[in-house]
Amino acid sequence: MKIQKQAGIRAYKADGFVGRYQKLIADTVIPYQYEVLCDRAGGEKSHVRENFINAARALRGEDAGDGFYGMVFQDSDAAKWLEAAAYSLACRPDTKLEAEADELISLIAAAQDKDGYLNTRFTISDRDKRWTNLLEGHELYCAGHMIEAAAAYYESTGKRTLLEAAEKNALHIYRRFVEEGKPGCPGHPEIELALMKLSRVTGDGRFMKAAEHFVNIRGTDPDYFRKERAARDWTVWGSSGEDGEYQQSARPVRELKDAAGHAVRTVYLYTAMADLASETDDKELLAACQRLWESITQRRMYVTGGIGSTVHGEAFSVDYDLPSDTAYAETCASIGLMFFASRMLEIDPDGCYADVMERAFYNTVLAGMSEDGKRFFYVNPLEIIPGISGAAPTHRHALPERPSWFACACCPPNAARTIMSLGKYAYGESEDTAYCHLFASGSVELGNGIAFECETAYPFGFDVTYRIKKGGRLAVRIPGWSRTFRLTLNDEEQAAEPVKGYVYIEVRDGDTLKLELDDSPAYIYASPRVPALSQKACIRRGPLIYCFEGTDNGGDVLSLCLDAGGTIEISGSSPFDGVPALEVPALRYPAADTLYFEAAPKPEPCKALAIPYFLHANRGLTPMRLWLFLTPGRVAPDGR
Amino acid sequence: MKIQKQAGIRAYKADGFVGRYQKLIADTVIPYQYEVLCDRAGGEKSHVRENFINAARALRGEDAGDGFYGMVFQDSDAAKWLEAAAYSLACRPDTKLEAEADELISLIAAAQDKDGYLNTRFTISDRDKRWTNLLEGHELYCAGHMIEAAAAYYESTGKRTLLEAAEKNALHIYRRFVEEGKPGCPGHPEIELALMKLSRVTGDGRFMKAAEHFVNIRGTDPDYFRKERAARDWTVWGSSGEDGEYQQSARPVRELKDAAGHAVRTVYLYTAMADLASETDDKELLAACQRLWESITQRRMYVTGGIGSTVHGEAFSVDYDLPSDTAYAETCASIGLMFFASRMLEIDPDGCYADVMERAFYNTVLAGMSEDGKRFFYVNPLEIIPGISGAAPTHRHALPERPSWFACACCPPNAARTIMSLGKYAYGESEDTAYCHLFASGSVELGNGIAFECETAYPFGFDVTYRIKKGGRLAVRIPGWSRTFRLTLNDEEQAAEPVKGYVYIEVRDGDTLKLELDDSPAYIYASPRVPALSQKACIRRGPLIYCFEGTDNGGDVLSLCLDAGGTIEISGSSPFDGVPALEVPALRYPAADTLYFEAAPKPEPCKALAIPYFLHANRGLTPMRLWLFLTPGRVAPDGR
Repeated sequence: MKIQKQAGIRAYKADGFVGRYQKLIADTVIPYQYEVLCDRAGGEKSHVRENFINAARALRGEDAGDGFYGMVFQDSDAAKWLEAAAYSLACRPDTKLEAEADELISLIAAAQDKDGYLNTRFTISDRDKRWTNLLEGHELYCAGHMIEAAAAYYESTGKRTLLEAAEKNALHIYRRFVEEGKPGCPGHPEIELALMKLSRVTGDGRFMKAAEHFVNIRGTDPDYFRKERAARDWTVWGSSGEDGEYQQSARPVRELKDAAGHAVRTVYLYTAMADLASETDDKELLAACQRLWESITQRRMYVTGGIGSTVHGEAFSVDYDLPSDTAYAETCASIGLMFFASRMLEIDPDGCYADVMERAFYNTVLAGMSEDGKRFFYVNPLEIIPGISGAAPTHRHALPERPSWFACACCPPNAARTIMSLGKYAYGESEDTAYCHLFASGSVELGNGIAFECETAYPFGFDVTYRIKKGGRLAVRIPGWSRTFRLTLNDEEQAAEPVKGYVYIEVRDGDTLKLELDDSPAYIYASPRVPALSQKACIRRGPLIYCFEGTDNGGDVLSLCLDAGGTIEISGSSPFDGVPALEVPALRYPAADTLYFEAAPKPEPCKALAIPYFLHANRGLTPMRLWLFLTPGRVAPDGR
Repeated sequence: MKIQKQAGIRAYKADGFVGRYQKLIADTVIPYQYEVLCDRAGGEKSHVRENFINAARALRGEDAGDGFYGMVFQDSDAAKWLEAAAYSLACRPDTKLEAEADELISLIAAAQDKDGYLNTRFTISDRDKRWTNLLEGHELYCAGHMIEAAAAYYESTGKRTLLEAAEKNALHIYRRFVEEGKPGCPGHPEIELALMKLSRVTGDGRFMKAAEHFVNIRGTDPDYFRKERAARDWTVWGSSGEDGEYQQSARPVRELKDAAGHAVRTVYLYTAMADLASETDDKELLAACQRLWESITQRRMYVTGGIGSTVHGEAFSVDYDLPSDTAYAETCASIGLMFFASRMLEIDPDGCYADVMERAFYNTVLAGMSEDGKRFFYVNPLEIIPGISGAAPTHRHALPERPSWFACACCPPNAARTIMSLGKYAYGESEDTAYCHLFASGSVELGNGIAFECETAYPFGFDVTYRIKKGGRLAVRIPGWSRTFRLTLNDEEQAAEPVKGYVYIEVRDGDTLKLELDDSPAYIYASPRVPALSQKACIRRGPLIYCFEGTDNGGDVLSLCLDAGGTIEISGSSPFDGVPALEVPALRYPAADTLYFEAAPKPEPCKALAIPYFLHANRGLTPMRLWLFLTPGRVAPDGR
């Protein structure tokens, strides 16, 4: 049984936790990002808006002002902002925002060449270099983001200007690569998943055909990028094109066995593969997606849903290489993992996909942004040691605090569009069923007519109430982490057994369905195959992974280990309003002046305070640790 | 009170442990290395001998055969081999070896230009490039090694050919840099410590002046290397010269506070600084040496005496950044640390220096070589995980097994010369005292007339007997690790109290002095400031650090933790003849099929077998771990 594609959700008006995050994005992040696009905020200029203006000048044969400025993929910042703005407008009308978006869209449309080509970098200058550097040029990547923005803006507002520009651009791409058969595949996957969306929104099968082309052409000529490099006398970053694994060109997608390469590229591609496998019923492609899902989630993923453990190529490493302190775990990669999970869920409503999607969202994706929405982590290490993190040669990427903005602005707008469209991940539907994948408070109306209000304090409270407005069949996920659950319909206990992580129940208008999930904190253990995690444990409550910060623990977390001889309690006080902190039985080792010594240290029992990982690094520079040694559970129960 | 310089030792004929190692070097390593120099072994040709032949041809105006081949510092392989051969000849006559050495020396002498310049790379071709790339060219580095070889060969054999060539070369260097005042400092320190030796052997004060010049000029123009780079149109490896810390040119040596930069370069420089501080009574320079010693040994050194924890620049990292699995810890860097320790000991006979020298020798330096003397580690990680070590992008340098030989052949000949000259590190002297820094079995005659036989099974047994042949004052080190000791003179107990780690005792001809050291295994703990070692312990017996290999522990060491609830015993059987293995109370965690799980694992008590770290990786690919989590010492004594 297939769940309908994301476009199916008619409306999700969030409140509660998601609503507060969406308000933060709408009130703070989107307006700030707009200022950045317009060079009115953010330190170094972005020049994003100006690039479109200058490209339009160049097309009119005028002087192109101050030319192009920024990264080769600078246009995609406008696209991601527009996509976030589109989702925001779908949630709450905002005439100022809509006017800003409309104006930016008109600038973009004016920057489109008459053949449909749309990219400021190669329009303002170097027009002869179009399509000669698929490896680094990001033309297809930028086109993909513009298509996603166009689809979202059309769905939210009904306005067609950007959609038409995106269609023209997509047709230009279709003609070149599919009809004319020009060689090459995208150096950074993105266009594939975008073309799938465009195909659904417009009903034009050529776009799906183009997506299929870009998925299937990978690895058919593993030497393509090296030859492309040899044929030109310029590069963006000096890439040789020889690392086929990095850019997913080493082998045909159906032969892939292990998740490898640049993590964001990897999961963007897998997302399109899953989408295509679903649309075309391609069993071989689906089997590849399932293998790669296993590879990621059973051998190459952090417990926070972070992926891409190494800074070298921002990439997947080998199996079980999951160091906490040097983790790369890019925010965008976990967003991409949510995409992949969400497409797999559409093919097969199995809770294992939703469990990972939820883990990635509530931990790594949210950790990417500060509590105030003004600072962002690209890299999400699971351990922060001031003096080493961001400082040691192997830890330069693992900054101990969120910087305010990056020259390479990929993660903040990506997080914004994901949070603003969370309804698409939380709720799905088939012809007759409403799927509740995540527990997201607010009102929900689906394309199949089912409608309800969801009330929950999730992820801090674990009762979820569905007040049915328009009945039908509900499929409610029982998370893999919940050891128990209780389901009542109009106060009557239901004996439903979950099928692959979902309970299916018929509800009628006016019904109240209540789900009670396990609210107890728990230790998570890792396979002994992970060298970095031997004999360690971390702590979870609901979907939230907890961590220990120096701020709450006398400034020092390195001298703490967990003590299995007690129970984890909800703390009476929390450093974050409304956010349960946990009191964890622990042992504190004494300080030592010498580097190595032989007098046995005598640890003292203590209570350590844990906070949700996604809230770490919000209170100044302090050490943070997520995995700690846990004493074997053989210590006397009085904790002595 | 100062100990005389190393040249003071008249003779040390090793037996026991050191003797066996010296025999291995003499019988296996030196002959094999000679074959490599002559391109008769070692896979890729070294061309070392051929380079000298071709340089002589070039000097005679003949065709230079097949030219120069190899690394820019290829000549230093010949020098290090000659130095090892010299020490070997001092221990045991070998006419074949001496003939080979003499012949190589004659080739070297013939390759020297009439102005004293001696370097095949810039003699065979590119003569106009002499001295234009001090940053990468290694001319001063190669000269330094040739000087060390010349001094050693002269001391061993009385033959002057190489000494005279080295003197001519050193005078060429003296004229250029000191008399003519040409700018620049060596990109790789080595010449400084070599010139100090040459000054002592020849009595020519110009060489010490040149050493002093090269020590003092560092950091006086921090921009020198960048300017040198800008002034030439070629490079060896593309170095920009901008990383002054890497090559020790960022600041004047007396201002250094933290050990930083390429670890081998760093300790070679510090060695010369200590030597110079001692010779010139330079208090400021000595204070810098003491600060840097503290920086290394209290904040930046592995428990194995390994230094330079990061692969990035093969360099020191920041304080307390001492990861086990990605350690660089180059064999040559620990050899350099022995040099530095030995010079500090000559200034101030304090056991703290000998403790570190011993730790570095018996663990990292010896670990550099396989048991059969045929394979070598450059990099000495403290943890090996097959599948990750040598494979993950961050672990490429940390090979899980010793390769047979390297294209860059610095470590094997460096280890060979160090082991063959161990007497110079083990024994020192002042006018009236014989210093026993290390416990090295064999017969010892010192320049001051004191002579004795040392008998011991060290480092596997801890009774040391000195049979005095010619009496005087003995200073015997009581290692910092020995919790107890007992000293008897002719069976009569002595109540000597150690002064800075040495007991001083008058002995007469025919006396028997016996020292009994603590033979009990012990846990070593690390400061909680070292993130990689929180709550872990490693095991030591005597100077040997132990480790756990899969081979002895059911193939898997990741699932083991140490259990403080028992005692460490000497095992009844050992995988290495005559080498005590240790039986260690441990817990083994169960295997797990899933990456993360919540069912508490139930570890089972077991005995883990530990072997000396220096013997690891001699029995095929297997995991190895040195630091393990140690349960807090609160578990019931029956180990349950």
